[in-house]
Amino acid sequence: MVEINGSRLDARLDQFAAIGATPKGGVNRQALTEGDRQARRLLTKLALARGFDVFQDQVANLFIRRRGRYDDLPPLMMGSHLDSQPTGGRFDGALGTLSAFEVLESLEDAGVETERPIVLVSWTNEEGCRFAPGCMGSMAFSNGTIPNEWYDKRATDGASFASELKSTIESLPEARVKALAFPISAYVEVHIEQGPSLEAEGIPVGVVTGIQGTRWLQIAVKGQTAHAGTTGLAYRRDPLWALTSALSQLYQNIMPPDPDARFTVGRISASPGSVNAIPDEVTCTVDIRHPKLERLDEIEKEVISAINCAADRQHCAVDISRTFDMPPCTFDQNLQEVIIAAAGQLDLEWKAMLSGAFHDALFVNRVAPASMIFVPCHKGLSHNEAEYVEPLNALAGCQLLAKAATMMATGEL
Amino acid sequence: MVEINGSRLDARLDQFAAIGATPKGGVNRQALTEGDRQARRLLTKLALARGFDVFQDQVANLFIRRRGRYDDLPPLMMGSHLDSQPTGGRFDGALGTLSAFEVLESLEDAGVETERPIVLVSWTNEEGCRFAPGCMGSMAFSNGTIPNEWYDKRATDGASFASELKSTIESLPEARVKALAFPISAYVEVHIEQGPSLEAEGIPVGVVTGIQGTRWLQIAVKGQTAHAGTTGLAYRRDPLWALTSALSQLYQNIMPPDPDARFTVGRISASPGSVNAIPDEVTCTVDIRHPKLERLDEIEKEVISAINCAADRQHCAVDISRTFDMPPCTFDQNLQEVIIAAAGQLDLEWKAMLSGAFHDALFVNRVAPASMIFVPCHKGLSHNEAEYVEPLNALAGCQLLAKAATMMATGEL
Repeated sequence: MVEINGSRLDARLDQFAAIGATPKGGVNRQALTEGDRQARRLLTKLALARGFDVFQDQVANLFIRRRGRYDDLPPLMMGSHLDSQPTGGRFDGALGTLSAFEVLESLEDAGVETERPIVLVSWTNEEGCRFAPGCMGSMAFSNGTIPNEWYDKRATDGASFASELKSTIESLPEARVKALAFPISAYVEVHIEQGPSLEAEGIPVGVVTGIQGTRWLQIAVKGQTAHAGTTGLAYRRDPLWALTSALSQLYQNIMPPDPDARFTVGRISASPGSVNAIPDEVTCTVDIRHPKLERLDEIEKEVISAINCAADRQHCAVDISRTFDMPPCTFDQNLQEVIIAAAGQLDLEWKAMLSGAFHDALFVNRVAPASMIFVPCHKGLSHNEAEYVEPLNALAGCQLLAKAATMMATGEL
Repeated sequence: MVEINGSRLDARLDQFAAIGATPKGGVNRQALTEGDRQARRLLTKLALARGFDVFQDQVANLFIRRRGRYDDLPPLMMGSHLDSQPTGGRFDGALGTLSAFEVLESLEDAGVETERPIVLVSWTNEEGCRFAPGCMGSMAFSNGTIPNEWYDKRATDGASFASELKSTIESLPEARVKALAFPISAYVEVHIEQGPSLEAEGIPVGVVTGIQGTRWLQIAVKGQTAHAGTTGLAYRRDPLWALTSALSQLYQNIMPPDPDARFTVGRISASPGSVNAIPDEVTCTVDIRHPKLERLDEIEKEVISAINCAADRQHCAVDISRTFDMPPCTFDQNLQEVIIAAAGQLDLEWKAMLSGAFHDALFVNRVAPASMIFVPCHKGLSHNEAEYVEPLNALAGCQLLAKAATMMATGEL
């Protein structure tokens, strides 16, 4: 019987939260930054100390492997990510990665020999805030290839993806680089809900049935810069006037009538950015989410037409591109049933639920049975420095992962 | 008779436009940057070569003085500024400064001895885009003091006003530093209209009767950052939703019904600035202009109440501060009549007009008779790299300045 060490898990969470810690108690550990590298080095050090095998691939996904009796069987995979938002929380990604590591350590402590090997993965750039798109690591793993255009990407801070990726891989000389993608038997990821429902309903774990679709747009509206004081209405081509009127209409029309829809503008800016000059160009991002593909299409059409109409009224030009497009997904039914059975054996109350956020499991689900275990986070806060998970809930999620993993790795799936 | 050298004036304009030149043919020579310093050094070199006296004050206003017969009389002052917008034009400020220098050179060429000395001034930070407020140099000159809080100011690029000011003064060792403020007999400034009316009406010069009032607001709306995908409508406190709905309403309600009103948002940003996170805080600037003080007050009230209402609906907090407040002004009547008389002697068609932009002359007008001469700029474009002035119009403005200056400096005022 595998015994999860809750205080060790809590200590690990504290240990990793110190890397990129922000004054408000969150973390800023964006993908492929020095903070990300420090976290990878720490996890590697802990893994080597337990005698586990450590390796990475060409997109810097980090793997920690514990042998099985039949060591050439496709491994069971568990994990999440260690990168964060600029003002992110200490649990988003880290909880799943460190829960998986706690499972490996507990199996080692208990001397349990599993049939098949178990591999922990920490995926590269799940958040996608420094380099879009998100989930680069799991996307490349499931496609078996890295799109060439990724290497030309520049971070919002100006850094080049190609060189940051190279430096990140080279910062882990003890982890040899293996070819991208390998067969796995299944993938389970523990993650915070990032929404309010589990806490509100007092349920310790969620078994995730699928993930709503996400679409990102990059929008630019181009007008003409001119003097704020001397340029009369008839002479103005103000792109910010156009953008704000379109956005305020979209905020009103998308979410209030459709409780499943999400519409978010996270980034906006105007150039040249002078207090007394009409902007010549304004840009913003749009994040659209919905469980139904057809509604994603409808909402995207609505956004594009609203921006174009408003821009026409201001005699402005528009440039809109899709920077990320992830259709809704449904997780493997059998895998969900294993997790539910494990919850039953642990007498854990659970509920089936859809994920509002996308996760690496969505991409892994394309090449192997995948599902997720959600734990409650306080007030549903996430992508927020105040993100918090009760230790008891973190423990429950980790115990469920251990139970389900042991069942699968010992061939019960 | 003083003969203005039009081709020399054009050559000087080209020479200074090369400092901070942008690929699109404009200039980026923001206040107290290295580009600004280069322009000051060039003007100083040209002045010393003609034997003029050069000095500066503690706010880095740059003065070039030509002696008069009664050299202790308060000097007549002419000039403008050499700083620019980030994507500014080659004439805004430079035309007035270099027209004044052309007048000094022409007087020298013609060997004319004026009764009173004539001083050219290049004011510090007229634009106010790097360090708010604008017109710092003329404001300090007319108040006779530099507000302490200016020294704590930080540029949008992070630079400190205090150190940039110090470096700028020190970059001109050949210009000794004199006490702030000294008596002058009058001030005349040549400037581009920065509006379309002179060109549209085919009139070469405008005699400026006054300047509309300007008020700048710095607005911050604070909500709560959270995950774009998992946070349902009921849990959102989205400050960008609040700000865009307020702005789109203000764009609609302020300018269309009131042809004299100007409402411009030149700068906007959201933090943390992640594509998939609801912003925790959004900020923007507001530039309000009107010829009537009471309307300025009304519009400011309308802005504040619209932002607060929209923020309340999103359960967001608001922080609004005035960063600049300039009441409308009326220029000296006698001085306008001198300029009109000079235009008559030159057979120049002119019109009386109000300035839509604020200028240093507004502040000088508080301590001495001041007025301005406007010349047409193509399509009224300004704060724009495409800003353009016909050489014939530049020449006409400079000739009118020379004529009016000679009349005044020889005691005809």
